[in-house]
Amino acid sequence: MSQSVPAKGRQLRTLVKSSGELELSLEDVDIREPNDDEVIVRVEATPINPSDLGLLVGAADLSTLKAAGSADRPVLTADIPEPGMRAMQARVDQSLAVGNEGAGTVVAAGKSDAAQALLGKTVTALGGEFYADYRILNVAQVMALPEDATAREGASCFVNPLTALSFPETMRMEGHKALVHTAAASNLGQMLNKICIADGVPLVNIVRKPEQEKILRDLGAKYVLNSSSDGFMSDLIDALAETGATLGFDAIGGGRLAGQILTAMEAAASRGSEYSRYGSASPKHVYIYGRLDVSPTMIPPGVGMAWSTGGYLLTYFLQKIGAEGRAKLRNRVMSELKTTFASHYTDEISLTEALDPETLKTYNAKRTGEKFLINPTL
Amino acid sequence: MSQSVPAKGRQLRTLVKSSGELELSLEDVDIREPNDDEVIVRVEATPINPSDLGLLVGAADLSTLKAAGSADRPVLTADIPEPGMRAMQARVDQSLAVGNEGAGTVVAAGKSDAAQALLGKTVTALGGEFYADYRILNVAQVMALPEDATAREGASCFVNPLTALSFPETMRMEGHKALVHTAAASNLGQMLNKICIADGVPLVNIVRKPEQEKILRDLGAKYVLNSSSDGFMSDLIDALAETGATLGFDAIGGGRLAGQILTAMEAAASRGSEYSRYGSASPKHVYIYGRLDVSPTMIPPGVGMAWSTGGYLLTYFLQKIGAEGRAKLRNRVMSELKTTFASHYTDEISLTEALDPETLKTYNAKRTGEKFLINPTL
Repeated sequence: MSQSVPAKGRQLRTLVKSSGELELSLEDVDIREPNDDEVIVRVEATPINPSDLGLLVGAADLSTLKAAGSADRPVLTADIPEPGMRAMQARVDQSLAVGNEGAGTVVAAGKSDAAQALLGKTVTALGGEFYADYRILNVAQVMALPEDATAREGASCFVNPLTALSFPETMRMEGHKALVHTAAASNLGQMLNKICIADGVPLVNIVRKPEQEKILRDLGAKYVLNSSSDGFMSDLIDALAETGATLGFDAIGGGRLAGQILTAMEAAASRGSEYSRYGSASPKHVYIYGRLDVSPTMIPPGVGMAWSTGGYLLTYFLQKIGAEGRAKLRNRVMSELKTTFASHYTDEISLTEALDPETLKTYNAKRTGEKFLINPTL
Repeated sequence: MSQSVPAKGRQLRTLVKSSGELELSLEDVDIREPNDDEVIVRVEATPINPSDLGLLVGAADLSTLKAAGSADRPVLTADIPEPGMRAMQARVDQSLAVGNEGAGTVVAAGKSDAAQALLGKTVTALGGEFYADYRILNVAQVMALPEDATAREGASCFVNPLTALSFPETMRMEGHKALVHTAAASNLGQMLNKICIADGVPLVNIVRKPEQEKILRDLGAKYVLNSSSDGFMSDLIDALAETGATLGFDAIGGGRLAGQILTAMEAAASRGSEYSRYGSASPKHVYIYGRLDVSPTMIPPGVGMAWSTGGYLLTYFLQKIGAEGRAKLRNRVMSELKTTFASHYTDEISLTEALDPETLKTYNAKRTGEKFLINPTL
């Protein structure tokens, strides 16, 4: 093993106990030798995405959060309400590592040429378990960042960029011609606006606050609607009629918004056409790709008959488009890393700070638009 | 025109007025000469399906129902609440005829051989506007009933039988291997049980009352669950795990049931498999083909990511399977008319009785399991 790699490193773990308690901790794990095709990455930047929070915090009640352990090895516990325990039954008593994606320096490499070529390079990868000092990865999983890009700049190359790119791709694959997006001022939403403007895809943005409207208008977004405003539904119907958007991507999940979008799509599609008792026949779909609101999704009856809604997972999309499709998208991310796919972080914190009760509550509550970055070297 | 056909006949009409009022009436309409390929059917039996009630009553508040007109030409009015008016905007001020399907005797026919061949025959058809004394139809729309079948026996040959047949067909087309059905003791549900037993398709039935359980068990149904019982969710998960059912057809629409089915499908699919943070990857879908409950459909977060739900319309299915597929299904209905596809009617009423306020409230409230038949010759 290279001298620059210690024998052990810290790894953030989440554990749901059968007693109904969530436990978060930093475990010391052995760092083994890399196989021929593997590299060891010293993690320097790994974002906290909403999808990470689902695994990290799950259905725990954070108002019951308690801190224990030491300053170096903090341990947090919180109660999990009964329905949450039912939903998380399959992970009970399994200590799970967290962190979908991240970037850092290759500090050790296996014997293969491909692995050796990466030694010393700043790389980025998707693969889980990034909330740790070190991460061992197969060379096929990592991408070298452009020479002038830092780990921080390359930490969020996958989840948000590929998800944003997947929306217009899905739109084309499924025969729609324009998009609706909610929580639209998020990092992902900003990327989506840049992509749609560049590619000429009409995009109807839905946000909740005036300052979020401004962010998107400053990017050049044409349709920006505020769901808290009085005229929201009629503005939405107008925008959907104008763009012909019949595909939505909803990050909120719970509550009325997905149903409002389907209702507005139906109203827009029926506008000006003869009455049909079953409503418009053109397919209208809203994908729910996030659950910022964990209350039930509510779909009212006024959506006609040609509606559907369902879960959306980037993984399924990436499987569908095949290796060539994936390579095309990844190359676009690399070439537009500092423009289209630039991420903004609210704060950069260490692994121990990630387990500070107040910090955790803050980054857990600010899921939309604001994102924290963990830097294990701090 | 044949002497047996009068110059005018009554036709039941539904009208949503821009003033926010529903008006139901019997209009006198001219009965024109049939074209060469047309026949005139004296309607003798036409069922009141839930899909008819959607058009007939729509979103009107039946507690405000008022009777006017004469004994021969009753007129009913009711207020329509504001959200209902929004949903029905496209039909405002259009007087619409009602009645999806029906059967009766061909009393006049056009000059073509095909039309002449039907003269005097008892026929059945799908095509709307059956709540009337007479209905003019193209020969391509009508099917002659078997010699020994009455109009009453042949009145419901399309909506319920074809919908019931479409469920296992859709299951096969979309790669599922077993079904879940709600409001399962309905006429349609009973047909579906007979079809599934005959064809070896595992079917999980969900009902709400013990007497409905009995109806289905007496038919030989293996899985009959009562959604009002305490152990419902765990029984449902067991039945879904045992059958592998990942496709549901829900007649209720509103409330929690569709979400409960998706939650149980997810729990059944995850059972015994390793924990995946995104849940099971096998697609789970619930089609909503009815809205017995007009409150919003509620989908909770515990459904994983590979879920979807959406509207289901027989028309779209029939378009998808093409002329050959449709003919195959229709032939099966004809050959099993008195067995698999036998309908049961709670009451047989006249056109004027259909516009009696108390009768209307009764058949509107008893949408599940009980069905009324209109006989315009009474």
